[in-house]
Amino acid sequence: MVESDRMEKLVSLCKRRGFVFQSSELYGGLGSVWDYGPLGVELKRNLKDRWWRAMVHGRDDIEGLDAGILMHPKVWEASGHVAGFTDPLVDCRQCKQRFRADDPRIEGGTPGGPESQCPGCGSRGSLTEPRLFNLMFKTFMGPVEEAASVVYLRPETAQGSYVNFLNVLQGSRQKVPFGVAQIGKAFRNEITPGNFIFRTREFEQMEMQFFVRPGTDEEWFEFWRAERMRWYEVLGIRPERRRFHEHGPRELAHYAKTAFDIQYEFPFGWEEVEGIHNRTDFDLSRHQQFSGKKLEYFDQERQERYVPYVVETSVGVDRLALVALVDAYGEEEVEGETRVVLRFHPSIAPIKAAVLPLVKKDGMPEIAHRIYDDLRGRLAAFYDDGGSIGRRYRRQDEAGTPFAITVDGQTKDDGTVTVRFRDTLAQERVDAGRLAAYLDERVAG
Amino acid sequence: MVESDRMEKLVSLCKRRGFVFQSSELYGGLGSVWDYGPLGVELKRNLKDRWWRAMVHGRDDIEGLDAGILMHPKVWEASGHVAGFTDPLVDCRQCKQRFRADDPRIEGGTPGGPESQCPGCGSRGSLTEPRLFNLMFKTFMGPVEEAASVVYLRPETAQGSYVNFLNVLQGSRQKVPFGVAQIGKAFRNEITPGNFIFRTREFEQMEMQFFVRPGTDEEWFEFWRAERMRWYEVLGIRPERRRFHEHGPRELAHYAKTAFDIQYEFPFGWEEVEGIHNRTDFDLSRHQQFSGKKLEYFDQERQERYVPYVVETSVGVDRLALVALVDAYGEEEVEGETRVVLRFHPSIAPIKAAVLPLVKKDGMPEIAHRIYDDLRGRLAAFYDDGGSIGRRYRRQDEAGTPFAITVDGQTKDDGTVTVRFRDTLAQERVDAGRLAAYLDERVAG
Repeated sequence: MVESDRMEKLVSLCKRRGFVFQSSELYGGLGSVWDYGPLGVELKRNLKDRWWRAMVHGRDDIEGLDAGILMHPKVWEASGHVAGFTDPLVDCRQCKQRFRADDPRIEGGTPGGPESQCPGCGSRGSLTEPRLFNLMFKTFMGPVEEAASVVYLRPETAQGSYVNFLNVLQGSRQKVPFGVAQIGKAFRNEITPGNFIFRTREFEQMEMQFFVRPGTDEEWFEFWRAERMRWYEVLGIRPERRRFHEHGPRELAHYAKTAFDIQYEFPFGWEEVEGIHNRTDFDLSRHQQFSGKKLEYFDQERQERYVPYVVETSVGVDRLALVALVDAYGEEEVEGETRVVLRFHPSIAPIKAAVLPLVKKDGMPEIAHRIYDDLRGRLAAFYDDGGSIGRRYRRQDEAGTPFAITVDGQTKDDGTVTVRFRDTLAQERVDAGRLAAYLDERVAG
Repeated sequence: MVESDRMEKLVSLCKRRGFVFQSSELYGGLGSVWDYGPLGVELKRNLKDRWWRAMVHGRDDIEGLDAGILMHPKVWEASGHVAGFTDPLVDCRQCKQRFRADDPRIEGGTPGGPESQCPGCGSRGSLTEPRLFNLMFKTFMGPVEEAASVVYLRPETAQGSYVNFLNVLQGSRQKVPFGVAQIGKAFRNEITPGNFIFRTREFEQMEMQFFVRPGTDEEWFEFWRAERMRWYEVLGIRPERRRFHEHGPRELAHYAKTAFDIQYEFPFGWEEVEGIHNRTDFDLSRHQQFSGKKLEYFDQERQERYVPYVVETSVGVDRLALVALVDAYGEEEVEGETRVVLRFHPSIAPIKAAVLPLVKKDGMPEIAHRIYDDLRGRLAAFYDDGGSIGRRYRRQDEAGTPFAITVDGQTKDDGTVTVRFRDTLAQERVDAGRLAAYLDERVAG
């Protein structure tokens, strides 16, 4: 399968089956914002839930937090975003289009020069010198649009964890080392968003800030680097499509001492899914400086006082959903037909089990409905009695449902149903009475 | 207890124990935005999860959706928000402060007149005529701040469900009547926010739009009105503190045929927590008109085509969290001391069970830790061995933990632990081996 085809097919499947719709499609769409449909919202819920369980519920040393999207504007001065979160842009004086200064399509020397050529209209020498544009969305709080009331939509959740460092420390009675985890929306006014839900202007992050004693930061960095890759392994993401990428000196953000990306091989190439960063004491020190308040920790055992270092793990939920979709997507010939299948790990599949009466008679729908009613309290189940059984199986394959439960003629006789496995197409007869436990075991994360 | 005291004590408990912090407190706070701390984020997760299970997973006729916060600006023209989502404001020419025109503190006739008195500085005749201010937050998409790229932060999630009506219908194969449910952030630039997390500028909604055949809307309205009140009953919210309030003709929103609020008696009075609205075909018809695309449903059984009516249920997560906190808050004398307790329904309590060794010796911490490790995979558990047992119980009472499990001298002998009940203070010995099942039964929603 050609890679660009694969992406196109996936986007089309996502729309058709209700995973992802273009935002405001009714009005021609809104650039780079996407809506999650009935299946997409469950996929995202499951991914977020797994992350929360792994990072917060599964550990004693990480606390959850949910800070606001709107924060005091000083936060973004301290973080460096007001001054430095910018992209250099150039305008074409001829066609009025705007481009990133590093757009590879700009030919003929640096923008601003007489030979530089506009990628839009082809004019020579029409591009302006690069100017810096801040990527933060700006809005106004209170009824007056004046500088005093400017607030930003956060470009990352991390700062909420830094400014609440003392609040969480005091409320939770944690000791360093400990972490603060958040899931929430963030916004970046990207100049060149794209690749479906990969780079969007509105997106959701799952970020964890781990506060450690200076000097132990490299050790903790290695711990979290390994731990986070292991998470993808447990999620069943193909090993040959994921790798580490270390940031070289020129890639490193201003706050980072060391940074590794976890990259995934999308149809459009290797790209970052998650970042693990040693942010040192940059953020807490800056907030100390800008707020005039101490953000120190007193280590009672060692009798020393310090500003903790931070090891951050940061993953985009939308990117992760795209990884899950791309990794799961498959096409294969089955009985002379092309079968499209999403091989999600059962723990993240939007529907865990579909209950299907073989035919719509002989009491099968009634039995199937009873089984469905029993299952749905425990896991995401779906009932379907419309169309041929083959077609219903195909629909569940496309939705990524790992188990299809069929009620047939034998069910009335011996109380068993068939369980059909999405990936192998194998079937197994299971006693209906122990179906719930049987499935529970197989869908656990 | 005086009511204003009750609110003050609750706010202080929320900060101290890590339920709710003021946003950007480090920088003096940001008006009317709040951050949820470790316990608050779990409370909110549990409330959202219960709603999602009741509305989406528990029903065959409701689909989930997660639309973007940013939408095409035409959406808000069609919905009526650009023209009509306004508050009348007046300025004081003297002190430059701004007030709602209906501010009860304005004395001396209508604002604008010579006798009207500024509630801020007391000047007479200094207030301007009322002017309308839109309550939507405005931002700019793309790098240029010009009218063409103005987008709004959504003031409600509902519109996302309307513009995706056909997408969801096609992707899910539902038939009318069916609903679309969403949980997500919304923003309103309120002039007078307040009462802690009751009225905030950034807030989270849980909204469900139920699409029905015109003529069946009143019947469905009654269904959802009863169903939603029942939800609060199941959640254990005190019956004497909740009631319906029907909107009179002057209260009704422009889109509504009938509207009922579910109100709760907060320390600051009876206020709306949830609204149930018969929105008729107002929204879908307006989107038809503004997009030029049909938003009709073809009913195959009746062979008729129509624009569905909508019955909406809309609840604020932050308000609901405040209901849960206020309703749960109690103070009582126990053994000569004042006990502060949050009597949450076990299904929404941030921590379900605390595991406590009676003393920090004789192998008790080791046994307690094993029990804790066993429990935490199944429910939100907490381990604490610091301080006297009485003090640890009190800490869990304040956190709203329904069950405290104590490992004592007898545990080593017969394998039993004591389970202490938060509400009655009764204790029961339970076999450690069946503890998980014992608790599972008691915390289920």
